[in-house]
Amino acid sequence: MTLSHRITHITAGGPDGWDLFRKARRMVAAGRPVIELTIGEHDIRTDPEILQAMDRAARGGHTGYAAVPGTPELRAEIARRLTERTGVPTGPENVLVVPGGQAGLFAAHHATCDEGDGALYIDPYYATYPGTVRAVGAVALPVAARAEDGFLPRTEDIEAEIAGFDGRVRSLLINTPNNPTGAVYPREALEALGALCAEHGLWLISDEVYDTQLWDGAHLSPRALPGLADRTLVVGSLSKSHAMTGSRVGWVAGPEDVIAAMENLATHTTYGIPGFVQDAGLHALQLGAEFEAKVAAPFRRRREIAARLVAEQEVVRALPMQGAMYAMLDIRATGLSGEAFADALLEQEGIAVMPGESFGRAAAGHVRVALTVEDDRFEEALSRLLRFAAAKSAGRAA
Amino acid sequence: MTLSHRITHITAGGPDGWDLFRKARRMVAAGRPVIELTIGEHDIRTDPEILQAMDRAARGGHTGYAAVPGTPELRAEIARRLTERTGVPTGPENVLVVPGGQAGLFAAHHATCDEGDGALYIDPYYATYPGTVRAVGAVALPVAARAEDGFLPRTEDIEAEIAGFDGRVRSLLINTPNNPTGAVYPREALEALGALCAEHGLWLISDEVYDTQLWDGAHLSPRALPGLADRTLVVGSLSKSHAMTGSRVGWVAGPEDVIAAMENLATHTTYGIPGFVQDAGLHALQLGAEFEAKVAAPFRRRREIAARLVAEQEVVRALPMQGAMYAMLDIRATGLSGEAFADALLEQEGIAVMPGESFGRAAAGHVRVALTVEDDRFEEALSRLLRFAAAKSAGRAA
Repeated sequence: MTLSHRITHITAGGPDGWDLFRKARRMVAAGRPVIELTIGEHDIRTDPEILQAMDRAARGGHTGYAAVPGTPELRAEIARRLTERTGVPTGPENVLVVPGGQAGLFAAHHATCDEGDGALYIDPYYATYPGTVRAVGAVALPVAARAEDGFLPRTEDIEAEIAGFDGRVRSLLINTPNNPTGAVYPREALEALGALCAEHGLWLISDEVYDTQLWDGAHLSPRALPGLADRTLVVGSLSKSHAMTGSRVGWVAGPEDVIAAMENLATHTTYGIPGFVQDAGLHALQLGAEFEAKVAAPFRRRREIAARLVAEQEVVRALPMQGAMYAMLDIRATGLSGEAFADALLEQEGIAVMPGESFGRAAAGHVRVALTVEDDRFEEALSRLLRFAAAKSAGRAA
Repeated sequence: MTLSHRITHITAGGPDGWDLFRKARRMVAAGRPVIELTIGEHDIRTDPEILQAMDRAARGGHTGYAAVPGTPELRAEIARRLTERTGVPTGPENVLVVPGGQAGLFAAHHATCDEGDGALYIDPYYATYPGTVRAVGAVALPVAARAEDGFLPRTEDIEAEIAGFDGRVRSLLINTPNNPTGAVYPREALEALGALCAEHGLWLISDEVYDTQLWDGAHLSPRALPGLADRTLVVGSLSKSHAMTGSRVGWVAGPEDVIAAMENLATHTTYGIPGFVQDAGLHALQLGAEFEAKVAAPFRRRREIAARLVAEQEVVRALPMQGAMYAMLDIRATGLSGEAFADALLEQEGIAVMPGESFGRAAAGHVRVALTVEDDRFEEALSRLLRFAAAKSAGRAA
C-alpha cells in the first residue's frame, strides 16, 4: 500500500543527525558512564507549584473539551506578555495556543505555504525545520550562515536562494536566540531581514522559544520593528522559559486573520490542548519574569564557565555564545569533522555532544554543547573536551 | 499578506453547521434556561482516580520530553487492548499515540493523500471530516448514505463517486459506531466496504472512537476482517470511552511502516503528548472493560428512555440507535427541515439539538439528540421535543 509522497519525504532519507544522540543513549542503557550534553532539556523538572496548579484545575473539573484556540485567560495572558515585551498592542485574537513550539512552526508554515512553494530557513538550523517545511508540502530552502559572521545570515545569500528557486517563495524562518549556534540577532540584522521580506512579499516566521535565555541585553522580536507586525508570525513556548518541555504548551502570535485561519487548522489537527495544562501554563506565566530568570540562571552560569574555560586555551573557539542553552564550539583546529570529533569524544571520554553537521552543513567542524548538567559536572566535562581537542590538535601538528 | 490556499479552504465558507450550538450557548450565557443536547461531551468529569495517576506521574518527574510516538508502556497497553478485541496480533510498533482522535484523523489522511487526491467519507459525517481532508490538500468526496438504509452506505454510491472523480482516490473514511447517526456497521457491510477498498487500492480509515458505546453485541473493527489489516488505519481515543475528552489522548493503529511514517509526522507537528497525560491514559486503560462499561452506562440508559418514548408516538422516528451517544430523530413528518425544527425548538422550548443538516445533506429532515444530560432531565426534554413535533405535525395537517 502506497503512502503519500509528502509523508515519506518529510525527512530526506539518510542519517537524520541524531545518530550520536542515540548512540549515547544506548551506552547509558548499557550501563556505561556518559555525560550527556546533547538535547535541550533542563536538568530540573517542572516546578511543583505549576504542577499543583494543573492538579487543582483537573480536580476542579477542567477536564472536558477546552476552547480550541486556547482558554480566554491563557490567550489574554500571553497577549499581555507580548504587548509588554514588544510594545506591539496584542490581544487574545492575535494569539493561538498550540501544543508546543513545534506545532506553532507547523501551523505557521501550513498557513503560509502551499504545495510546491519555497520556504526559507537559516542553516545551521534546529533539526525539525526542513521536515516541517516538507510536512506541509513546501520546498525546504536552507540559506547557509557562516561561522565567520557569527552565524548571522547575509541578505545577499537569501536573495540568491530566492533567485535560484523555480517557484514562489513564501516565508523566511529565523530563530533568535538561536539553536544551535547561540547567536542573538541584533536590531540591524532583523531590520535587514524585515526589509528583505517586505521586498519579496515573504512572511517572517520568528521562532522565539529561547526568548528568556540571552546573556546580554533584552530579547528583541522582529514583530516589534516598524512595519513588521503585519507580516511576522511569532512562535513561542513555555518549554524552555518555564522548564515545561513535556507539557507541550506553545503559541503563535500574529495578525488576527492569520490566527483565525490557524484556529480552523487547529480544529482539524489537534482540537486544542488540555484545559488543565492550559491552566498550568497560565499559572506559570503569572509567576512573572523573576521565575523565568530563575529557570534561565543555570544556563547563564554555565555559559560563564564555558567562556572562562575556552578563554584559557587556543585550540577551540566559542562563538557567539550570546543566548540559548547551548555553546557552539569551533573544533576545526583539531582537523576533525564535528561528527568525527563527537564520536571520538563519546567513545574515548564518555562525553556526548552534538556534531555541528546534525544542524546543517554551515556548522561543519563544530560541536554543539548543551548547558544542561549541573555546574561542577559541566565544568569537568568541558575541561575534558578541551584537553581532548588539544591532544587531537597536537597530534595533528606532530 | 496572502495565506495558503490550503488553510483558507479548510472550511468551504458559509455556515459551518454550528450556528445552533453557538446560539444555544449565547442564550445560556444570557441566563436563559436551555437544555443542551448538542455536543458529545459527557455529563461527568474525568474520574478522580485517573487524575490522581496524572498528578502522581507529574510530581514523580515525568515532565520532560516524552517519547514522540508514545511511551512504550502506553503503546503496549493500547496494542494489548487491540489484540484482545480484534484478534489481530498488534504490537507497540503498530500504534502511534496522538493528541486525540482528531489528530489521528489528520495523520491518517496526511499519510495516505497527496495534494489533489480524493478522500471519501460517508455523509452524514462528523463535522471535521471534510475540513480534515482539505487540511492535507486533498479533495473531500462525500458519499450520501440514506435514511431508509439506516444510514449505511451503498457500495454502488461509493463506486459512482470514485468513477466521477477526475483524479486518484486514496482513502475511504468510515465511522462505526457512527456519529451522528447512531448506526453500527454490521459485518456484511464492513466486508463489502473492505472488498471495495481492495478493488480500488484504497486505504480504509476507520474511526472507532465510540467503540465502547454500542447497545447490542460487541464492536467489530474492519481491521479484524480477513485481508484488511494491511490496508486499515484505525483511529481510537480515550475521549468517549473514558470520559477524557479534554485530555487529548488518541491513537492510530495500522501497519508498522505507516506508523513509522506517522511518527515522523508527529515529530514535525506536535512532538508527542505530555508524559504525565500518557501515564493517566495508561492508568485509565488498565481500569479495564468494567470501567468502560460504567462510563457508557448512562448513554445506554438514556437510549432506552429514547426508544421507549419514541415508541409511544408516531410522528418522530428514531433509527438506527444502535451505538454512540446520540439519537438521530427523523422529524420529516413535521414538514420542517432539521434546521427549522431545531431553531424553533430552541426558541420555543429552550431545548438545543443539532440539525441533521449540520452533518451533511444526507441527514436533512433529522435532528441529532445527544444523550448527555441526566436521565430525568433527558426524559423531560425528549418528551417535550416529541410533543413539539406532534403539534407541528398536527398544525401541518390542519
